[in-house]
Amino acid sequence: MPQFMDVHRGMTGITPELLKQAHQADLDIQDTEGMNFKQAWADPSTGVVFCLSEGPSEEALRKVHERTGHPADEVYEVPVEV
Amino acid sequence: MPQFMDVHRGMTGITPELLKQAHQADLDIQDTEGMNFKQAWADPSTGVVFCLSEGPSEEALRKVHERTGHPADEVYEVPVEV
Repeated sequence: MPQFMDVHRGMTGITPELLKQAHQADLDIQDTEGMNFKQAWADPSTGVVFCLSEGPSEEALRKVHERTGHPADEVYEVPVEV
Repeated sequence: MPQFMDVHRGMTGITPELLKQAHQADLDIQDTEGMNFKQAWADPSTGVVFCLSEGPSEEALRKVHERTGHPADEVYEVPVEV
């Protein structure tokens, strides 16, 4: 199953509670696209959020994030990991 | 201890072995700056690498990556995680 890191920008001031809510919204519908959102990290000062997931395709990833109201600005497939 | 995600660009074609070598080079000297490099993910097609670490400061992070020959293009402190 391909693994992805996607990047969201413009989320300046994001709090732990808001990140948790956004992540939970993805988890709630991810099965419809075969996605598995695993972890996310946020920098409230620059508004950048990194999101690690597994799933069938970039398209499936983008659909979930769009339906939950936080479309990804960049999506990278990351098959190499250490 | 602050947590960071840094981004490297221009590493098109990076292989698992090359990422492992680069990561090991960081691990070998990270104690000198009090850093702890935890994980890294690479997209060989776009040449983007994401690197998760903990340490005292962005400056310490940048020093390690510079000394091992792969300076970070972007560094984000990511205190919010889910």
